[in-house]
Amino acid sequence: MSDDQRFGLSRHATLPGPLALDGGVTLSPVEIAYETYGTLAADGGNAVLVCHALTGDQHVASTHPRTGKPGWWTRMVGAGRPIDPARHFIVCANVLGSCLGSSGPATVNPATGAPWSMAFPVITIRDMVRAQAMLLDHLGVDRIVVVGGSMGGMQALSWPATFPARVTKAVVIAATARHTAQNIAFHEVGRQAIMADPKWRGGDYYSSGDPPAAGLAVARMAAHITYLSEAGLTDKFGRRLQAREAKSFGFDADFQVESYLRHQGLSFTDRFDANSYLYITRAMDYFDLAEEHGGLLANAFRGTPTRFALVSFDTDWLYPTAESRIIVHALNAAGAAVSFVELSSPYGHDAFLLDAPHLDRVVDGFLRAA
Amino acid sequence: MSDDQRFGLSRHATLPGPLALDGGVTLSPVEIAYETYGTLAADGGNAVLVCHALTGDQHVASTHPRTGKPGWWTRMVGAGRPIDPARHFIVCANVLGSCLGSSGPATVNPATGAPWSMAFPVITIRDMVRAQAMLLDHLGVDRIVVVGGSMGGMQALSWPATFPARVTKAVVIAATARHTAQNIAFHEVGRQAIMADPKWRGGDYYSSGDPPAAGLAVARMAAHITYLSEAGLTDKFGRRLQAREAKSFGFDADFQVESYLRHQGLSFTDRFDANSYLYITRAMDYFDLAEEHGGLLANAFRGTPTRFALVSFDTDWLYPTAESRIIVHALNAAGAAVSFVELSSPYGHDAFLLDAPHLDRVVDGFLRAA
Repeated sequence: MSDDQRFGLSRHATLPGPLALDGGVTLSPVEIAYETYGTLAADGGNAVLVCHALTGDQHVASTHPRTGKPGWWTRMVGAGRPIDPARHFIVCANVLGSCLGSSGPATVNPATGAPWSMAFPVITIRDMVRAQAMLLDHLGVDRIVVVGGSMGGMQALSWPATFPARVTKAVVIAATARHTAQNIAFHEVGRQAIMADPKWRGGDYYSSGDPPAAGLAVARMAAHITYLSEAGLTDKFGRRLQAREAKSFGFDADFQVESYLRHQGLSFTDRFDANSYLYITRAMDYFDLAEEHGGLLANAFRGTPTRFALVSFDTDWLYPTAESRIIVHALNAAGAAVSFVELSSPYGHDAFLLDAPHLDRVVDGFLRAA
Repeated sequence: MSDDQRFGLSRHATLPGPLALDGGVTLSPVEIAYETYGTLAADGGNAVLVCHALTGDQHVASTHPRTGKPGWWTRMVGAGRPIDPARHFIVCANVLGSCLGSSGPATVNPATGAPWSMAFPVITIRDMVRAQAMLLDHLGVDRIVVVGGSMGGMQALSWPATFPARVTKAVVIAATARHTAQNIAFHEVGRQAIMADPKWRGGDYYSSGDPPAAGLAVARMAAHITYLSEAGLTDKFGRRLQAREAKSFGFDADFQVESYLRHQGLSFTDRFDANSYLYITRAMDYFDLAEEHGGLLANAFRGTPTRFALVSFDTDWLYPTAESRIIVHALNAAGAAVSFVELSSPYGHDAFLLDAPHLDRVVDGFLRAA
């Protein structure tokens, strides 16, 4: 076991495992890239695990090494923020299957000395959670508060269902307990876009130095539409044209929304691996917490000691409020302590990443409550 | 001028034009593939022009020559249907820019003797309508009832705005008077998917015999999601697995919705041209009837003698009821005669193509009214 504590808080652990995966195979060793902020209290009672979304990473409140941009949740994590290194020991780990240092298709398969590529095992949200649990064991953290939005919220649900004794509180934001047919459909479009790119080469593109960027960009564009509300897109772009101020009667990006989407697609390819996109979307599509518990969601939480806070956004059409209500009803049926609020925001699903003072207050109040 | 009346009702006209296009260029000659059903009355008062949607064609009630499937609107057009050859002289023409015989990127540019490809001029919905008007002149049809759903509804709106004296009634189903940012965004994803396919070759793929089918399939998949309601997808597929009855922990189509989407994408490439998809989506994105009339939609219809019937579907999230209401308000402001109904259907945008007895009754009643 090695623990390479490099610059500041950015860490990397090689854990021996083996990690038994839902797909029936084991992974060993398990690489986990993570960051920590703050200090673990003597009683171990101040640990907060922050779980990231599909294309997120461990750089929750530090500069992203590739893009140079601030951490993805500085509005929630940092000095004076609801999750504060002065009070909390904060852990954020790159999920299994991702591409920012944790084991995934782009990391080396020790059996071959080459990248796993599509030989990497297909993983689930619960597998991501199990890997995080191994990391917490390694860090000497027993009990946690778990917080996450979107796919991070799926992990925040899976945590108490998988390790009930370890989770004191769970904050589940803009999430769902299962992917719907429409959710799966959008992800399938993205996967097909990647796999249709000849540069994908069945996943074996790492040595070519020429990844399937075009396919990945299309995948990102399709997904990005689902992260924004129709009204938000209208407010932000409407039918406004680019600087040329007249239609080109051609196929350049005439409309601002076209240019914006193209930029979102292209810039994404600089920071993300196409195979990781396949694996993580697959994990999300497989997610159905009820199915894991005999078909009844309440069974996932029966007797749970965890206290839950659920938050949805009224303009989120990816994981709409109705999905959060299903979770709340199941928690009620299981006798769990749960609070729930639907917040108003013009920004759709992405609201959890953006400026939303109400969300800050909800999380802050819930974390401070005894 | 030639008029090649081939098998039965399937016709093709080469009109000399020139057709002055919104993009500032002229097209000459103009090829139009069309079908007619029934006989024009002596007073010319029984003509119905049926306008088709993005991927539709002139085979409104006859077998599609490539797929062998029945016409796309046999539930609306045929003996005993609301639009009936026994009573009406029915015309349905392949739109300009399409690929079923009318002038478009796949037809021959007379200046070069080779397919136009991307040298075909970018066209608008109004250009499609102008081409239809030239066809009606050729057929000796002066006044019409115009009927269309989706992009066909855009044409049914553009017709009375462009040729007010020629349209007695307009039936506008599941349509919009302008493409929103979200509408444009979905189309842009499709265009980028096509143009990212190396087989697209800048549009010059006709001689290769190897069109960008993979990109076109992805474009179709993304669009297809928008044609169905979330609830409809859930009813039809939910999270049901394919026949193998267990997750594969791989990247085959595990879920029925994945298999369905892949089939939709692939089968589409057998019957549609990728460049036509680019041109027609562009025309739809450019559509903004208010913009064509000084920024005020009511101006498009001031003093119109046309009577309008608008129909929306409650689960249509592509062109939701709110878009139809905007049109109705403008028609009211313009003093036009208009009726409007929102129909209930589980099928989303595609409801206008599917079994919807209420829609039949609305259209039948409106067409029979004096």
